Amino acid sequence: MHKIGIVGGTGYTGVELLRLLAKHPDVEVSAITSRGNAGTPVTDMFPSLRGHVDLVFSEPDAETLAACDLVFFATPHGTAMEMAPQLLQAGTRIVDLGPDFRLRDASVWQQWYKLEHSCPDLLDEAVYGLPEINRDRIRQARLVANPGCYPTCVILGYLPLLERGLIEPARLYASAASGVSGAGRQPQVRMLMGEAGEGFTAYGASGHRHLPEIRQGLRDIAGHADIGLVFVPHLLPMIRGMHATLYGELNREVDLQALYDERYADEPFVDVLPAGSHPETRTVRGTNTCRLAVHRGPDTSTAVVLSAIDNLTKGAAGQAIQNMNLMLGLSETGGLDQIALVP
Amino acid sequence: MHKIGIVGGTGYTGVELLRLLAKHPDVEVSAITSRGNAGTPVTDMFPSLRGHVDLVFSEPDAETLAACDLVFFATPHGTAMEMAPQLLQAGTRIVDLGPDFRLRDASVWQQWYKLEHSCPDLLDEAVYGLPEINRDRIRQARLVANPGCYPTCVILGYLPLLERGLIEPARLYASAASGVSGAGRQPQVRMLMGEAGEGFTAYGASGHRHLPEIRQGLRDIAGHADIGLVFVPHLLPMIRGMHATLYGELNREVDLQALYDERYADEPFVDVLPAGSHPETRTVRGTNTCRLAVHRGPDTSTAVVLSAIDNLTKGAAGQAIQNMNLMLGLSETGGLDQIALVP
Amino acid sequence: MHKIGIVGGTGYTGVELLRLLAKHPDVEVSAITSRGNAGTPVTDMFPSLRGHVDLVFSEPDAETLAACDLVFFATPHGTAMEMAPQLLQAGTRIVDLGPDFRLRDASVWQQWYKLEHSCPDLLDEAVYGLPEINRDRIRQARLVANPGCYPTCVILGYLPLLERGLIEPARLYASAASGVSGAGRQPQVRMLMGEAGEGFTAYGASGHRHLPEIRQGLRDIAGHADIGLVFVPHLLPMIRGMHATLYGELNREVDLQALYDERYADEPFVDVLPAGSHPETRTVRGTNTCRLAVHRGPDTSTAVVLSAIDNLTKGAAGQAIQNMNLMLGLSETGGLDQIALVP
Amino acid sequence: MHKIGIVGGTGYTGVELLRLLAKHPDVEVSAITSRGNAGTPVTDMFPSLRGHVDLVFSEPDAETLAACDLVFFATPHGTAMEMAPQLLQAGTRIVDLGPDFRLRDASVWQQWYKLEHSCPDLLDEAVYGLPEINRDRIRQARLVANPGCYPTCVILGYLPLLERGLIEPARLYASAASGVSGAGRQPQVRMLMGEAGEGFTAYGASGHRHLPEIRQGLRDIAGHADIGLVFVPHLLPMIRGMHATLYGELNREVDLQALYDERYADEPFVDVLPAGSHPETRTVRGTNTCRLAVHRGPDTSTAVVLSAIDNLTKGAAGQAIQNMNLMLGLSETGGLDQIALVP
Repeated sequence: MHKIGIVGGTGYTGVELLRLLAKHPDVEVSAITSRGNAGTPVTDMFPSLRGHVDLVFSEPDAETLAACDLVFFATPHGTAMEMAPQLLQAGTRIVDLGPDFRLRDASVWQQWYKLEHSCPDLLDEAVYGLPEINRDRIRQARLVANPGCYPTCVILGYLPLLERGLIEPARLYASAASGVSGAGRQPQVRMLMGEAGEGFTAYGASGHRHLPEIRQGLRDIAGHADIGLVFVPHLLPMIRGMHATLYGELNREVDLQALYDERYADEPFVDVLPAGSHPETRTVRGTNTCRLAVHRGPDTSTAVVLSAIDNLTKGAAGQAIQNMNLMLGLSETGGLDQIALVP
Repeated sequence: MHKIGIVGGTGYTGVELLRLLAKHPDVEVSAITSRGNAGTPVTDMFPSLRGHVDLVFSEPDAETLAACDLVFFATPHGTAMEMAPQLLQAGTRIVDLGPDFRLRDASVWQQWYKLEHSCPDLLDEAVYGLPEINRDRIRQARLVANPGCYPTCVILGYLPLLERGLIEPARLYASAASGVSGAGRQPQVRMLMGEAGEGFTAYGASGHRHLPEIRQGLRDIAGHADIGLVFVPHLLPMIRGMHATLYGELNREVDLQALYDERYADEPFVDVLPAGSHPETRTVRGTNTCRLAVHRGPDTSTAVVLSAIDNLTKGAAGQAIQNMNLMLGLSETGGLDQIALVP
Repeated sequence: MHKIGIVGGTGYTGVELLRLLAKHPDVEVSAITSRGNAGTPVTDMFPSLRGHVDLVFSEPDAETLAACDLVFFATPHGTAMEMAPQLLQAGTRIVDLGPDFRLRDASVWQQWYKLEHSCPDLLDEAVYGLPEINRDRIRQARLVANPGCYPTCVILGYLPLLERGLIEPARLYASAASGVSGAGRQPQVRMLMGEAGEGFTAYGASGHRHLPEIRQGLRDIAGHADIGLVFVPHLLPMIRGMHATLYGELNREVDLQALYDERYADEPFVDVLPAGSHPETRTVRGTNTCRLAVHRGPDTSTAVVLSAIDNLTKGAAGQAIQNMNLMLGLSETGGLDQIALVP
Repeated sequence: MHKIGIVGGTGYTGVELLRLLAKHPDVEVSAITSRGNAGTPVTDMFPSLRGHVDLVFSEPDAETLAACDLVFFATPHGTAMEMAPQLLQAGTRIVDLGPDFRLRDASVWQQWYKLEHSCPDLLDEAVYGLPEINRDRIRQARLVANPGCYPTCVILGYLPLLERGLIEPARLYASAASGVSGAGRQPQVRMLMGEAGEGFTAYGASGHRHLPEIRQGLRDIAGHADIGLVFVPHLLPMIRGMHATLYGELNREVDLQALYDERYADEPFVDVLPAGSHPETRTVRGTNTCRLAVHRGPDTSTAVVLSAIDNLTKGAAGQAIQNMNLMLGLSETGGLDQIALVP
């Protein structure tokens, strides 16, 4: 059994990691840290784990973490970059669910996160943990930057079209929407049920932190720099689930359904629906699956891609475990065969 | 007091008409019909109206309706067109909340509704009931086609840009989302709370009945035929509220905020938010207001318009009453000064 | 126009007061205070009020408030009691929506609120603002303690039975449930949508601050001290609405329906449903109505009363305005004729 | 691998059986029937099962079903009783998730279900499938009547008190509440999201079909006939989850916490929370656990028991699989070790 550590286990990605790892056949969580809750049994905070998890939150102690084979950071930006160098030096591998290592350009990172990056030298080494693109590099990586939820949802949707050069990269439009769990478990007025329930709104229309990450991902796929992406995120009155509706102008005729079917035929966590379908977020709830459908806008040459994930699973903890599986040489699907909870 | 009739009062637009008309200072509902519920007091079906409404559903009788000054049709497609000619001949004016008179081209109507239109000659006379565009014509109209909810939300969003020729009409992208009440009160599996709750999905990506209506509306504004619109509706896990996120490529520099502020300065039911805002559907819940914000896509020449309405009010019954007010020479805002129910 | 002040206008009862008072024919809000938001336009915080409210939050200044005819306190416990003596002396009347003056016994208050009461002498003068019981005293009152939401819902349900001595007061069982808005607008983890959505739980089963208030109210009605009430509140995954299911053992035969019909025949804000009905919270959403139904437990001598209110309206701001109307000699129903927003 | 059949697989208990059985280590579903959907792949109706289930709905054919070791009936009342005799004769064992065999008294069944029972002789043989009471008899049973959701939730809550004679059985009060999935997947107006969302209501206060089943269960535990139970169910604005708040008058002093801890110490699917806790339905979502807490009503001799289950799992499909495990001699917890999906 590989020994796993979790830094920052009191948020939603933390409890999702625990839910999934508790049933993983090949690993065990040996440490979970929380500066503010050290000494508290995990099940006091998350009674849903009673009978399944027998851990106590501990201080984020470097020694304890260094004794793990792999450590997940489920922390806000700025934490992982402080601890990563020391852990890597100790031979512990890292999957960072936060944004510290997602952007290769430190100056762009600093512009969006308003903080100096403490180890820009690691940005080149860090592998962007989207297995559908970087599977082989992830297997070798010491440090994996787990993608954001919106980037996962958007990039997997555009991938088949962009990598074949079938759409105009300078004019991409992405409307995406997330359940409230994407905003985390910190108390804030706008995430109260009295505020977020029974309503819908866009946010960040003039700029969102996931925008440079998506652009970088799409640039890598398209193979050149001219990505003109407009990305508008929205907040859904529900807990889990993320959906993106992606538009792209086709520059030639193509069988969209066949393109997507073929591209993802061997991907264990991407499911392309039959022609004419629309993926529902609830069909991926609690699973690591990205469910896609592709349409042609009526009377137009526009490809419309619909992409649905669970923001906490394929959009965070599930994908992190998929990356862990690859890094540790385990079955890529180990611990990730859940069926969505429907209804 | 003007006498008002409602045909088909058992659905969500019917009960919304009653909620609003019961407090209207200048009209009274003298007949409400429902073939299946004739003889039933309205409050048996809608206890929320107890103490406010004292009507009994009656058979849709032409004579009774012809005694009204104005009749609302809150019926599925195909009903209003059967009764309209007789009522108009009797001098009764009509606001049809259904789609029978929205499209001027009978063949397009027949293509989308799979039914022969029974009075295509009235299509030219019918006025499209969007007061922000057709106010004067509505005042004179005998027959008003009340716009669909999606068309209202989308057209008001694009209007300032399109009428000034500021965006490329051949490449418009509209992602819109509606609460479940837009699907009506007929029992259907996909609208059960067990299906529609806690999830999000697109639908009709390959074609939706509101598409030709939106296209016609945008064509009228742009003044020419070449509208290339991709429209994708989505279903929200909430009851009331509609939101559209609209993209358009600017063909020259313009002060977007000033453009919208000026265009809608005198409109009683369109509220342009300050720069940088995002309209929330809950701030228009139960009101006849369309709340707009306009953004510039970061690093692009794309205008992003955010438009929020209540699908049952400005998207249906409220706008119908706004039209009625104009047709009857009443104050346009009569009976429509509700404040949104927040939280 | 009477001049009205609101202290503490940034919570849910504050915005509900504004929603209702903005349309009240006989009063105008001349001051609204918020220590933390002084200088901010109210509509910056609550865009739903745009076009209806033109106020700016101000410091809670005694002089400004004393210039009002009546002041509402929409504050947490401990605030109203600090400012009340000064305002009363200045001749300003007060409706406290908080709990400072609800309990006549200062020692009980101090036990539940863990704070010394600063003006216990006012407790005797304060009138408990349940118009269905204390209408005449409210008319004369300088200081009204507006009832809590649970007490309103429970007391109105038991009133007809208890005042006629028809049930055993030593064995009363009350299961009640509230939407999340009852917990206010302060950020707290358990009220995040990710926590409170899609779930249901009891709380305070071993004791809740509303328990002594309900007991005092029932004692006053029963006319003696032996009230044995078990009260269990629950949290509903919705925003507005409160429901109580009340059990009482009948000690003799009685026509329950007639009892309730007669008791509430002249009450403008209590609606007794026909026999066999079940009140739905949504039918009172946004209104000042308490909707009741009374059943006989099958094969038992138990009366089962079902009571539904909107926790922010009849349970807070609406009832406060009803009290204000009585105190100022206005029509009791002024500004309170809303129809519930259904669906 | 044991061969399992499912009759009536298109409802919510059907899809929940499939979700759980697909991952069960010792059984495989070899037939799933639906008269109306024969020939349709299961994943066409439930895309959430794509990649996990490869079955096609078939006609409910006696021969196919008789080839199974055990058949689940996930059907409305009246279906299982028609097919049961033939299947039992063929040696196939049965777990009926419907109500056909839950009441031992055919006349009571007929009174509540308005239908003559077609095989009353089987009522005595059928074992009531609550393992916490009838574990040994279930192991031997040919025919198990899987309990209703409300009965499971209520009986497990009262069990420790009643079997020890600690509360007065003539005065029991049970307020219970269920998510909408308990009403099934048939289209009906009152379960539309527009009706059931954002509201709360009691129903069946004058009598509910689960009442005689609960009474029978409590009578069996108490050992005598005088059960005076008042049971009021409520409908929650959420999908999954059931909660009961149970009141009972203690007739002597007892350590309630110790009583519950001891009674359920060895039960794999009953979790008694620490003193002072309140079980949340979301902590059992998708699991077979019943989570309990017990309180003393403040200043009273009333025991208050709080009981939470997932109505589709411990309240239906999960418990059915628990029964199947016992009947087939498998590990009782096989296929039932899910962790709740939180948030």
